[in-house]
Amino acid sequence: MAINHSACIEACNRCAAYCDHCAVSCLEEGNREEMAECIRLDLQCAAICRLAAQYLAQDSRFAIQLCELCAEVCKACGEECGKHDHDHCRECADACMACVRECSAMVA
Amino acid sequence: MAINHSACIEACNRCAAYCDHCAVSCLEEGNREEMAECIRLDLQCAAICRLAAQYLAQDSRFAIQLCELCAEVCKACGEECGKHDHDHCRECADACMACVRECSAMVA
Amino acid sequence: MAINHSACIEACNRCAAYCDHCAVSCLEEGNREEMAECIRLDLQCAAICRLAAQYLAQDSRFAIQLCELCAEVCKACGEECGKHDHDHCRECADACMACVRECSAMVA
Amino acid sequence: MAINHSACIEACNRCAAYCDHCAVSCLEEGNREEMAECIRLDLQCAAICRLAAQYLAQDSRFAIQLCELCAEVCKACGEECGKHDHDHCRECADACMACVRECSAMVA
Repeated sequence: MAINHSACIEACNRCAAYCDHCAVSCLEEGNREEMAECIRLDLQCAAICRLAAQYLAQDSRFAIQLCELCAEVCKACGEECGKHDHDHCRECADACMACVRECSAMVA
Repeated sequence: MAINHSACIEACNRCAAYCDHCAVSCLEEGNREEMAECIRLDLQCAAICRLAAQYLAQDSRFAIQLCELCAEVCKACGEECGKHDHDHCRECADACMACVRECSAMVA
Repeated sequence: MAINHSACIEACNRCAAYCDHCAVSCLEEGNREEMAECIRLDLQCAAICRLAAQYLAQDSRFAIQLCELCAEVCKACGEECGKHDHDHCRECADACMACVRECSAMVA
Repeated sequence: MAINHSACIEACNRCAAYCDHCAVSCLEEGNREEMAECIRLDLQCAAICRLAAQYLAQDSRFAIQLCELCAEVCKACGEECGKHDHDHCRECADACMACVRECSAMVA
């Protein structure tokens, strides 16, 4: 995209999509009880990633601070997803960790 | 992305980013008075595109209906952006029309 | 609030809060398997209610069309919540049905 | 509402509605040039208030950190709105400052 910070915006949007997909996929799994924390974090992660993408695209003066918190939520979500063997969890963990890297690069 | 409807999700996210960027860029233009409608539609378009991306990634049973309305908002926004010569408006118009195509393909 | 359509905006926001609360509360219930559809609809309902509140507060020309779809999502969510005995489900069902009434009044 | 933190959730939702309304009302004002910063902050403030309401209603472990940043954005927005005489700016400034108080109380 011909927009500033497009790598971070794309990582945020990608992470949000994997989190949304992981959340509803977890609801279909047999070990639903173990998945509750994964679902909770997926939802929180998807939502803050979308806000980070908005703040970045709007060149908000608060974008860095939001990216800092976004990285923290993505890290928690990626670590939780990483505990589970489902494909959607592993793909989501990868997307979360890629988003941690991009958001951390914004902060640095 | 390894997610259903990823082409439409990506078009929605891309459109949202261009709309957010166009909205704040319009605020800096000299002919601000003429840009009011463009800003208004940019904001509405960015927001519904983000919701469409969420519904698609969550495999919502309402995704098609939301894509139908999203296509309508994107079309209005793209047509308004198309009236202006600013780079951000032209790029945004392109992203809107690409999103119209993807959302319309979902509905078809 | 000193804003047009404030009754509908407040019903949307209230519904979103009850849906968010119901979704995470359902994750803690023993009969988690039966709650999957309730959680899915809660998430979709919360999200479209927030967008409807935004469109109404921004006097969007698409507010009526969005309220129409929002009423449909709220109705589906309220009916699903109404099947369950948990307090959070019953309170959420009430908030959904109140939002259906306000959104339908916008459309009428 | 029969939900934890409902005073803060309601202050966030109220602030978001006044910010959305203020943003589009500013676009209609004669002194549009002076209103650009007000519009930018309105949009950022509305969006983070909505996310804070979601995190609170979902009992997110990150709710406090988000409220802390939300209070900062609301304060910036309220101070900017406070510089302008338009009714929508003054009402928005009040809603922002009420939200600062509620979010700060969450953090304390």
